[in-house]
Amino acid sequence: MKKIAIIGSTGSIGTQTLDVVSQHPGEFSVEGLAAGANADLFVEQVRRFRPKTASVATKEIADRVRPLIPAEVKLYYGEEGLVEVAAGTDAETVVTAIVGSAGLPATLAAISEGKHIALANKETLVTAGHLVTKLARQKGVSLLPVDSEHSAIFQCLNGERMEDLERLTLTASGGSFRDLTREQLRNVTVEDALKHPNWSMGAKITIDSATMVNKGLEVIEARWLFGVDFERIGVLLHPESIVHSFVEYRDGSVIAQMGTPDMRVPIQYALTYPQRWNSDTKRLSLAEVGQLHFREMDFVRFPCLRLAFECGKIGGTATSVYNAANEVAVARFLNREIPFLRIEHIIESVLSVHKVQADPSLEEIGEADRWARETARSL
Amino acid sequence: MKKIAIIGSTGSIGTQTLDVVSQHPGEFSVEGLAAGANADLFVEQVRRFRPKTASVATKEIADRVRPLIPAEVKLYYGEEGLVEVAAGTDAETVVTAIVGSAGLPATLAAISEGKHIALANKETLVTAGHLVTKLARQKGVSLLPVDSEHSAIFQCLNGERMEDLERLTLTASGGSFRDLTREQLRNVTVEDALKHPNWSMGAKITIDSATMVNKGLEVIEARWLFGVDFERIGVLLHPESIVHSFVEYRDGSVIAQMGTPDMRVPIQYALTYPQRWNSDTKRLSLAEVGQLHFREMDFVRFPCLRLAFECGKIGGTATSVYNAANEVAVARFLNREIPFLRIEHIIESVLSVHKVQADPSLEEIGEADRWARETARSL
Repeated sequence: MKKIAIIGSTGSIGTQTLDVVSQHPGEFSVEGLAAGANADLFVEQVRRFRPKTASVATKEIADRVRPLIPAEVKLYYGEEGLVEVAAGTDAETVVTAIVGSAGLPATLAAISEGKHIALANKETLVTAGHLVTKLARQKGVSLLPVDSEHSAIFQCLNGERMEDLERLTLTASGGSFRDLTREQLRNVTVEDALKHPNWSMGAKITIDSATMVNKGLEVIEARWLFGVDFERIGVLLHPESIVHSFVEYRDGSVIAQMGTPDMRVPIQYALTYPQRWNSDTKRLSLAEVGQLHFREMDFVRFPCLRLAFECGKIGGTATSVYNAANEVAVARFLNREIPFLRIEHIIESVLSVHKVQADPSLEEIGEADRWARETARSL
Repeated sequence: MKKIAIIGSTGSIGTQTLDVVSQHPGEFSVEGLAAGANADLFVEQVRRFRPKTASVATKEIADRVRPLIPAEVKLYYGEEGLVEVAAGTDAETVVTAIVGSAGLPATLAAISEGKHIALANKETLVTAGHLVTKLARQKGVSLLPVDSEHSAIFQCLNGERMEDLERLTLTASGGSFRDLTREQLRNVTVEDALKHPNWSMGAKITIDSATMVNKGLEVIEARWLFGVDFERIGVLLHPESIVHSFVEYRDGSVIAQMGTPDMRVPIQYALTYPQRWNSDTKRLSLAEVGQLHFREMDFVRFPCLRLAFECGKIGGTATSVYNAANEVAVARFLNREIPFLRIEHIIESVLSVHKVQADPSLEEIGEADRWARETARSL
């Protein structure tokens, strides 16, 4: 019986994690669930999976759901609640499925308690990779990637020596607008942006796919997960999202992980590693797919990816600022305040006036994050 | 310093093995070299790599080359010579690069002496897989695949549990005639057949690629190397030969090994496993390749592959007969005695009159082999 907790249980990764749990009756015990504001789904999940500990975004929501869930469930709320679900249960593995930088303190708390992290909250590594990986090493905790790209690379590294690794390549579908010119991008709508060609994901990450910020965050995440310099991380356009990513070794061999696009596969792998368990995911038929296409990444077409590499190489608070500015810009776009192309403009503008702090503490990261959000809101 | 011996040193795999040795000065010691009738190249190799033991096909060739090589080299010939090079040196690993069923006694002798086998002689497993794998287990010897397809699968299994394996798929370029109809195959010449689109290989294996017998032998070899039933081995047409083969796990994940077609990569991996060493092979650029194509194998277009699966499932002496009949038929085609399509006709005819012997001894295999050759010559 694998004991898990999920922070961000009502989001896309959270619900798919619970799908995986449901597919393996008697194999998982859900010790904790933390949700945000989706009270109805939260109540349904708590009734069904019977966690001992649970949490919601606010006191108000907690008061509302309290009568609707079993009395023995310990119910918390807010930041403290997140930490309680992440670090205060008997879970061996915590799935950090929450979106945004709010996941960082809870993740650090879970690592401090020696819990393995099934890491879907990429902002954790983007904003505080140096602190998180250091603490994980100290505590002997595994950071198991949930993102399909990082899971792919993690799988391709199985049984290999890191010293034999030459290069990692993350594939990118190109997102909803991959076939539009920059000129055509001027007038795209929120509705257009939310139609991702291959993956079923949340709204924020779908926009991040269209801007290629998502791939930028993944590049930074890969640097910390696998301890590889940015010079040895590549991004390749691959519209079909069948080759999820690949690794090149110094003998010239390339190992790739492939599959039909289904987030439940990498989620399950993070929970069962080093084993693989059965899955009812649709099997990949390369004969049916017929063709796979690849082309060079275009850093002019996708300036946000160029910025991610630049921030990554600079390090310090630069990546936190990149991430925070993007979060605000995307929220403003989804809120129909700004056009699509303003997202990249805001990120670049915020970065251009940021004074980078090297090797920042959590407080300094928080400060840079707040500053970046404020600045991004004002642009 | 890795000590190796090569049987079949002047052939395609043998010379490429020595290329690998040359690329890593001071890392390999060549303890033994066995060649056939290519005396000039053999002399050159012996002078350059200074094996302590060497062998050629016949006494006549031995007498001819004796004055041309250093006096301290122990020179043998014939079957005894092959066994001497395979089993009688200080080599830890023996590369079995000889083509045809002549490699079997030498390979068994090497395994008996506890030497790991870098296995390029696929007939070893095709004709006596049950005996060879049993002896290798008893002696704690590794059978390391040299074929690009099997090396790919071997690499894709790194760090995984065999119980998690769902299916193996060997890719097939389709050979020199992949775009011809069966009608068009009637009049193809030896010269046409020897133009393989992707790989630089010997004549026999190039013909075997065109008939798909090569893939059939590989399927049978895979069954023994990886201990997987024929029902779980697939073959997929992939004209570019970039994806060298792949493995599907029970969670739906597919792990593939890719690279530019260069036999030196799998040869080197067999010699350096579990490490990977540097290689100057051309790096794979998927962006440059642009597209990869896949389509279902056509067992009507390629009846020799269907026959291989059938023989494999029947087992016993059936696979030896398949192989022996093919060897004779290909020799007759290369000798311009028969047209191309007669190859498959001969194999099928010989099999149709063969009385299969289950779990055969070496003697019984030898007898079936001789019978099949005689019969194939008479058709």
